[in-house]
Amino acid sequence: MVARTVDLRSDTVTKPTETMRAAMATAEVDDDVLGADPTAFRLESEVAKITGKEAGLFVSSGTMGNLISVLVHCDIRGNEVILGDNSHIHIYENGGISTIGGVHPRPVKNNEDGTMDIDSIEVAIRDPRGELVFPTTKLICLENSHANSGGRCLSAEYTDRVGELAKKHGLKLHIDGARIFNASVALGVPVQRLVQAADSVSVCLSKGLGAPVGSVIVSSKSFITKARRLRKTLGGGMRQVGFICAAAFVALKENVEKLDGDHKKAKELAEGLNEIKGLKVEVAAVETNIIYVDIVEGSKITAEKLYKNLEEHGVLVMPKGLSRMRIVLHHQISSSDVHYTLSCFQQAFTGMHQENGSYSISTSRDVSYA
Amino acid sequence: MVARTVDLRSDTVTKPTETMRAAMATAEVDDDVLGADPTAFRLESEVAKITGKEAGLFVSSGTMGNLISVLVHCDIRGNEVILGDNSHIHIYENGGISTIGGVHPRPVKNNEDGTMDIDSIEVAIRDPRGELVFPTTKLICLENSHANSGGRCLSAEYTDRVGELAKKHGLKLHIDGARIFNASVALGVPVQRLVQAADSVSVCLSKGLGAPVGSVIVSSKSFITKARRLRKTLGGGMRQVGFICAAAFVALKENVEKLDGDHKKAKELAEGLNEIKGLKVEVAAVETNIIYVDIVEGSKITAEKLYKNLEEHGVLVMPKGLSRMRIVLHHQISSSDVHYTLSCFQQAFTGMHQENGSYSISTSRDVSYA
Amino acid sequence: MVARTVDLRSDTVTKPTETMRAAMATAEVDDDVLGADPTAFRLESEVAKITGKEAGLFVSSGTMGNLISVLVHCDIRGNEVILGDNSHIHIYENGGISTIGGVHPRPVKNNEDGTMDIDSIEVAIRDPRGELVFPTTKLICLENSHANSGGRCLSAEYTDRVGELAKKHGLKLHIDGARIFNASVALGVPVQRLVQAADSVSVCLSKGLGAPVGSVIVSSKSFITKARRLRKTLGGGMRQVGFICAAAFVALKENVEKLDGDHKKAKELAEGLNEIKGLKVEVAAVETNIIYVDIVEGSKITAEKLYKNLEEHGVLVMPKGLSRMRIVLHHQISSSDVHYTLSCFQQAFTGMHQENGSYSISTSRDVSYA
Amino acid sequence: MVARTVDLRSDTVTKPTETMRAAMATAEVDDDVLGADPTAFRLESEVAKITGKEAGLFVSSGTMGNLISVLVHCDIRGNEVILGDNSHIHIYENGGISTIGGVHPRPVKNNEDGTMDIDSIEVAIRDPRGELVFPTTKLICLENSHANSGGRCLSAEYTDRVGELAKKHGLKLHIDGARIFNASVALGVPVQRLVQAADSVSVCLSKGLGAPVGSVIVSSKSFITKARRLRKTLGGGMRQVGFICAAAFVALKENVEKLDGDHKKAKELAEGLNEIKGLKVEVAAVETNIIYVDIVEGSKITAEKLYKNLEEHGVLVMPKGLSRMRIVLHHQISSSDVHYTLSCFQQAFTGMHQENGSYSISTSRDVSYA
Repeated sequence: MVARTVDLRSDTVTKPTETMRAAMATAEVDDDVLGADPTAFRLESEVAKITGKEAGLFVSSGTMGNLISVLVHCDIRGNEVILGDNSHIHIYENGGISTIGGVHPRPVKNNEDGTMDIDSIEVAIRDPRGELVFPTTKLICLENSHANSGGRCLSAEYTDRVGELAKKHGLKLHIDGARIFNASVALGVPVQRLVQAADSVSVCLSKGLGAPVGSVIVSSKSFITKARRLRKTLGGGMRQVGFICAAAFVALKENVEKLDGDHKKAKELAEGLNEIKGLKVEVAAVETNIIYVDIVEGSKITAEKLYKNLEEHGVLVMPKGLSRMRIVLHHQISSSDVHYTLSCFQQAFTGMHQENGSYSISTSRDVSYA
Repeated sequence: MVARTVDLRSDTVTKPTETMRAAMATAEVDDDVLGADPTAFRLESEVAKITGKEAGLFVSSGTMGNLISVLVHCDIRGNEVILGDNSHIHIYENGGISTIGGVHPRPVKNNEDGTMDIDSIEVAIRDPRGELVFPTTKLICLENSHANSGGRCLSAEYTDRVGELAKKHGLKLHIDGARIFNASVALGVPVQRLVQAADSVSVCLSKGLGAPVGSVIVSSKSFITKARRLRKTLGGGMRQVGFICAAAFVALKENVEKLDGDHKKAKELAEGLNEIKGLKVEVAAVETNIIYVDIVEGSKITAEKLYKNLEEHGVLVMPKGLSRMRIVLHHQISSSDVHYTLSCFQQAFTGMHQENGSYSISTSRDVSYA
Repeated sequence: MVARTVDLRSDTVTKPTETMRAAMATAEVDDDVLGADPTAFRLESEVAKITGKEAGLFVSSGTMGNLISVLVHCDIRGNEVILGDNSHIHIYENGGISTIGGVHPRPVKNNEDGTMDIDSIEVAIRDPRGELVFPTTKLICLENSHANSGGRCLSAEYTDRVGELAKKHGLKLHIDGARIFNASVALGVPVQRLVQAADSVSVCLSKGLGAPVGSVIVSSKSFITKARRLRKTLGGGMRQVGFICAAAFVALKENVEKLDGDHKKAKELAEGLNEIKGLKVEVAAVETNIIYVDIVEGSKITAEKLYKNLEEHGVLVMPKGLSRMRIVLHHQISSSDVHYTLSCFQQAFTGMHQENGSYSISTSRDVSYA
Repeated sequence: MVARTVDLRSDTVTKPTETMRAAMATAEVDDDVLGADPTAFRLESEVAKITGKEAGLFVSSGTMGNLISVLVHCDIRGNEVILGDNSHIHIYENGGISTIGGVHPRPVKNNEDGTMDIDSIEVAIRDPRGELVFPTTKLICLENSHANSGGRCLSAEYTDRVGELAKKHGLKLHIDGARIFNASVALGVPVQRLVQAADSVSVCLSKGLGAPVGSVIVSSKSFITKARRLRKTLGGGMRQVGFICAAAFVALKENVEKLDGDHKKAKELAEGLNEIKGLKVEVAAVETNIIYVDIVEGSKITAEKLYKNLEEHGVLVMPKGLSRMRIVLHHQISSSDVHYTLSCFQQAFTGMHQENGSYSISTSRDVSYA
């Protein structure tokens, strides 16, 4: 029997808070497909304001936010997008920009920190002077924080340089900002500054911010008009959507300030795991709420056995390949959960739980599981 | 100043009831993209049960329900769908099955009652024996009730015949059941019977049933597995979606029984409007909750002026072309609203409101606005 | 044993003439993908001149000509084309504009003469003022002569009216001119006049004109630049293509004048077939080189048996549905072939050839059956 | 005035030989869209035989060969192809597999020798067990010889290993064999052996083999049936196509044996260029008929000036980026042309032509231009 569940698979698994439920219960709603829902409008305006863009559009997921954004930028048959070869859009969105949108992706190598070399991007841009065999480059996509590199952050300066490159070649810049608030908090730089160079951003509210559902695309007014039509084409237009927007609004107001705590817990957990013989974590790379943990070759325990063992203790992680797992922190993981998790890992490797208070970094905390 | 609003543009404009809000406030939810939301699962199962199909999938709109269904049936490049030339899919869904899905539509003439002639459908089916220049017919789509024909109902017998034709040619049958409950109530035939011949159905909960958001696709388990993946591709996967499913569940439980009243009010309103000199309604065609009203040529008042006049009195209708409007009843339109609406129309044509109780069809009712 | 073959399935079956072979043998050619083939350029220029357009592009088929033209006009995701429900593009081109191009077709009823009612076209045009659920109408397609209506011709006046309608709504007009020379000859109106209102035309050289391969798209220079790139995308760019252009040039120069004879022979054959008890041809509708022949219900012979019988005598026709066949005349069908064909049909129905043996090769062309 | 032209931009620029012209002049042809052209059939059968596959299909270009092949393998919406990030399909075919075909490309790094690491390919293959966010991998593409790596050859053993990997994962293997004959000659391995592991191959006849137009797809009969339909969809079906097939047949029979000479001349030219101060060629990488030449940084002459200077002397090369050019040998470049070319380069860098016989690598040859 599992006495306790610590779900570290993703920050999408958070449960709505009481404040969110209360906001939903009293939300003023109307038919948003007819453009009349005031709560949706309030949320869209707020995210637009925070990001410094003209307008916003609520969509049901980050995937839809990215799909619509790429398709609005690349609206003509034969368009191409430059994006990271390890980006969420390229790897985890069903290839929808091609299979649904007919856009040609031109992946460029993602460095370990989630950037692409500026030179490599420039080389990938097609000469627009009419070479008959080239697609037409229209868009560059960045991702901040960058999930597959372990939640690492792109600096404002880097983003600006990519933005300048885009401008120089007449291209647009889209940022997959699924976790842009994590990047903002980690870097100590306002979201607006981080996305200043972007023509569009897709911001998720249902990841670290803990909203039950939804993302917001922000861009210019004319872009959002096109995005609204495309949302309808995809079937993403929702009627009295204000309910979920009300919860998302609460997420935006209440949970940004919790992200710093998530990052600290992630660091603590990363350090603890790295101390376990048989595991390896690049602690310095843990900049936000994501940890990649490798099971060292020759470890006493197989990945499969480890996951099973953890699961029996209620600790859920996300396997990534044969010997790697992903762990994601969020506001519903307490310090106690972190310590419990460490204990479970330790036990899996040593066959015994750590003694009370043995983690130097956490001695002062009330560790109920010990 | 508008003292009162009677919104007859669509049955999508209903506001969630208190029961729905209460259900949302207490809904048990989880990450549905990971397949874990119990409330979504309960709703999907319930709609599957009602329609007699194996499984269901919640989607954010009827458009998404149809888009996914057509694309799952027509999954191979070069597939073609036969559908009504006046159907919702062909006219009001942005052509998404082609522009997003690459499916070739082969429209067949819709009769005034929403049917297509069986012979015409058969002629449109392409010979699969390999003619090099033909797309491959894979699917026939029906719509029940049929919105653009004024909400008329397809009988179970007609649907069965189309189903047999489909089987004979190795095709699938999809029903756009955005208002299948209206058809069921009007015909006095269970939904399950009406869709018995269908391989898939898209059922809307946010139209006449008054849910804030959502539709459910029902079909076989293997179909739903493919639909779930495609929903993710479109960005239609939602995390803690149980909230809106909870409201939709209430709609399903509480509002089906209200549809008969909507139909009666529609009939009453249709008859009243048809008595106004300058308007024409084919009253016999009003089988459910939709009314098409024509402004007679040579009428004293232009369409534009009429709509403006009505709007000043808070009565909203949906213009359809130059001299036609659509009116849709729903559970939040009272008998009183119907009478008020009639009065406003009358006034627009005669310059004066009808005297108290003058509508023979409604004398016995308590008409508060009079 | 077949002593003789009369292939009436299509005017695409013609064999290249000696002049064409000679032209090929000496053609000056170069790499046309690099834009350097002088013979391709000469042909493209000539067709552009004849049609009164700025520029031309050689393509390998009428299907490619139409596909590229529609896709260049409808270059933005979400575009829609209005076309005849009985047009070649809609019925016989694999639905490529949708399945390959993602363009949404909006078919309008073709009248028996190949026209669409102007009013019906106008009703089908979507209001561009931003209704969220409509594709964006970009293009109207006509077909002249209209194959599926039996090769009937659209007048310059009708085409002009459609052109004016297109202009009024900011749309483009494309003409599928696979047999525009047949229309021109039959109407006694220059091709240039017939396509005056069109923004683009696809002209086939390998149908009635008898070239071995190819069509030419004509339009503005900027359109042709886009078409050239799209041709490359489809893989339709060919290197030393001048060979087939040389033959096509001969076709253009030598065979236009033969079309009138084809039309006369078609008329003669149509009249002859219509006199056979068991067959029905609407003779008045035979305006060019195409004949539709119906086997009358209750005829002594089944379609299948008839085709088999004809084939045994070397007469090939194209079945169209259960009891209809298509017959197409071209410059390699002689008067003698026409008489022989009539004789074979007669024999199939009566069990005996016409008297006088006059059809055996009918050298005198004295048509005794009339 | 240009006394002489040496066109080294591509092996597509060859002019048809007299034997080809003669073959065209007498070719037996028929309507190939109706499947009746004997000369097309003969060519298709011959290429099928040479490559050891069941059947062949003539197409108008290598791009069409690859496009059709990828689309037939990836026929279901949501399919993905693994291909080299420096492959012709990914870089030089307008992104058609996505923009026209909706296939998602997953590029894997091409090594300098045109291979992709087997491990990297395997990592890129998506787990088919149903991860909701992954496209479905269906196909791996190789290119042999590999144009962008300078015409380097993939060994039969390497290809076999990729084929085994494909089989292991239920995938198909397509080879872009635009220059497979060059690879065969350079490796001394029959074409059939080189493509043994492939499910389909696209073979170009209009590159090194010097045919005026065309490629042949080879694969299984059922694949070719699908390919034929898709060719029609693209508009690539051609009527009396036997003419160009006749020329291509000659190319196949007469020019394979000339490839070895092309390779030798390429080596000679590469060595000569590498001796010029200011140019750099990786001579060892010149395995077939393609040479990449870099202008060394700090060279006396800019790329632009160099190209202009060469062009004034009739020597045409293909610029690739800022300081690199591509040179391609073919059977219409003589040894004399090679020496003349070297002389022109030398002169561009030194301001003077080399003295007679000064190229040590070519002293024994009769250099008429000197």
